[in-house]
Amino acid sequence: MEREDVGQVSSKRVYNGRVISLDVDEVRFPDGSIGSLEMVRHPGASAIVPVLGAVDDPDPELVLIRQYRYAAEQYLYEIPAGRLDPGETPVVCASRELLEETGYRATEVTKLFTMYTTPGFTDEKIHLFMASGLVPGEHKREADEFMELVPTRLSRALSMIERGEIQDAKTALALLYTAGFRLG
Amino acid sequence: MEREDVGQVSSKRVYNGRVISLDVDEVRFPDGSIGSLEMVRHPGASAIVPVLGAVDDPDPELVLIRQYRYAAEQYLYEIPAGRLDPGETPVVCASRELLEETGYRATEVTKLFTMYTTPGFTDEKIHLFMASGLVPGEHKREADEFMELVPTRLSRALSMIERGEIQDAKTALALLYTAGFRLG
Repeated sequence: MEREDVGQVSSKRVYNGRVISLDVDEVRFPDGSIGSLEMVRHPGASAIVPVLGAVDDPDPELVLIRQYRYAAEQYLYEIPAGRLDPGETPVVCASRELLEETGYRATEVTKLFTMYTTPGFTDEKIHLFMASGLVPGEHKREADEFMELVPTRLSRALSMIERGEIQDAKTALALLYTAGFRLG
Repeated sequence: MEREDVGQVSSKRVYNGRVISLDVDEVRFPDGSIGSLEMVRHPGASAIVPVLGAVDDPDPELVLIRQYRYAAEQYLYEIPAGRLDPGETPVVCASRELLEETGYRATEVTKLFTMYTTPGFTDEKIHLFMASGLVPGEHKREADEFMELVPTRLSRALSMIERGEIQDAKTALALLYTAGFRLG
């Protein structure tokens, strides 16, 4: 029998930021006890696997992005992604980020998965999509020093996960989900 | 040609917490520009897939945990996991969390993957492992209202990912990695 009264007792904002905010909340747990939790509040994000080849190709070419990540103190391979704008739906965000980061428009966008990135300390959810039927946009994006486009076969991307060369959670999860449940 | 001088210019701690801390850092980016980033500092964590059945079983039974997560305002299915203690190695942490959360000791622990949970705003890394040859510990853990043990076949766990019933990133990634590269 699960308690109905679990959850927030009180909330105190300790930092109000540009991207994230931090609350320290009093929370009632399932055993009735009350404890304090640090909770990073985030608006949520979308990420999208860009499939360059035909979706019935058993090993289609994808577009990965290689970008500098301060948090990791290195360049990471990722899929296009970004935060939801206020009022923006996840699918619109995914298509917008695809265009902004790769220069491609998608003919078809399908939902893959929604993940809690790390629910011990943040409410951030990332909505994962797959884009196919890619058409170059009017203003094709040029690679810059922040973000390099890396066309990569699905089989090669999976090898990069297996070997730990892809380290970003949303990217590894979206690619494994795509390989397991959508392609191949 | 990548710049050598990317990274931290200065750092200001704005919140010093029990689990996480928050810095606002000035960062030099690959194009030479300097910007401000909110960065949640986390000690890192380990998570472990407990394989109850034989590893040569094509569809072994695993131990999932169903636990209340305030961040998600719901119960989530997860694998055993927890933060690194000071000075603790990831593999020791994984075995400790396995015992604490499930009551099992592992005869064999193998490394799967290390993931950046969400590198846009935190340096948290989770180290993923697989445990096999499980032996009940001296004090077998009883289920409580926080955390319920849910023995689940691998094939069923994969269906739960496909249908969105598993929503935790480390859990979905560890299970897909296990299915793709270690078992089956």
